[in-house]
Amino acid sequence: MTTRFQLDKRLQQDCVELGDWRGCLLLLMNNSLVPWYIVVPRTDIKELCQLPAALRADVDRNVDELSRFILAEFEITKLNIAAIGNVVSQLHIHVIGRYPGDYCWPGVVWGRDEKQPYTELEITQIKSRVNESLFLQ
Amino acid sequence: MTTRFQLDKRLQQDCVELGDWRGCLLLLMNNSLVPWYIVVPRTDIKELCQLPAALRADVDRNVDELSRFILAEFEITKLNIAAIGNVVSQLHIHVIGRYPGDYCWPGVVWGRDEKQPYTELEITQIKSRVNESLFLQ
Repeated sequence: MTTRFQLDKRLQQDCVELGDWRGCLLLLMNNSLVPWYIVVPRTDIKELCQLPAALRADVDRNVDELSRFILAEFEITKLNIAAIGNVVSQLHIHVIGRYPGDYCWPGVVWGRDEKQPYTELEITQIKSRVNESLFLQ
Repeated sequence: MTTRFQLDKRLQQDCVELGDWRGCLLLLMNNSLVPWYIVVPRTDIKELCQLPAALRADVDRNVDELSRFILAEFEITKLNIAAIGNVVSQLHIHVIGRYPGDYCWPGVVWGRDEKQPYTELEITQIKSRVNESLFLQ
């Protein structure tokens, strides 16, 4: 289904686009302080419970595979998974790897300003891992 | 499946138990400032992506039905849905109704201290609505 989907400007600014993935766009939050990915369903629907069943299933499958990817790739102890949207109303689901001692543990990452952008090389490496482990599976 | 499931002490303290619901326990956060419900799968697994498929599907169905219930019952504009677990590691999913002007809009509710417990009467009314609209459907 092609819709007039356009990525929200704030997400565009804060994130790196990793690619299309089963009805969604996968983003990397450009903040290397924690592994922080965002799944954006290609729709203008604002709530998970209002998605058509097929897209809802795709979102879940993406969130679960991304979760397992983060658990496998990084030394983290807890996943934080959230659809919030109070600031950016476009439906988007955060999937974040957290661990005791990270920059805002045990608090949540939302509303915090600390940021450490990735280097070009790091982004290239992440794109390659995501491609192998997620998109090509 | 009967497991040695025991509700986390912090959740016990902060919430009112509304009842059993398809593999989960449904809680009401005892804070009337926003409609705030919590779905606790009856398991000791810590991450959504590690749940057996049937329980994962039950959790989703519960979260979606609860979302529609909150949208229908309250004057809210956005749902906040999240599995965090940095403080309480027992898997639990927050489903919260938010609106511009609520006590911490557009920030997130986690990490905030403001609290207005429900009255006995309010809890009785909520239990009755949840029973009719969710458990008996």
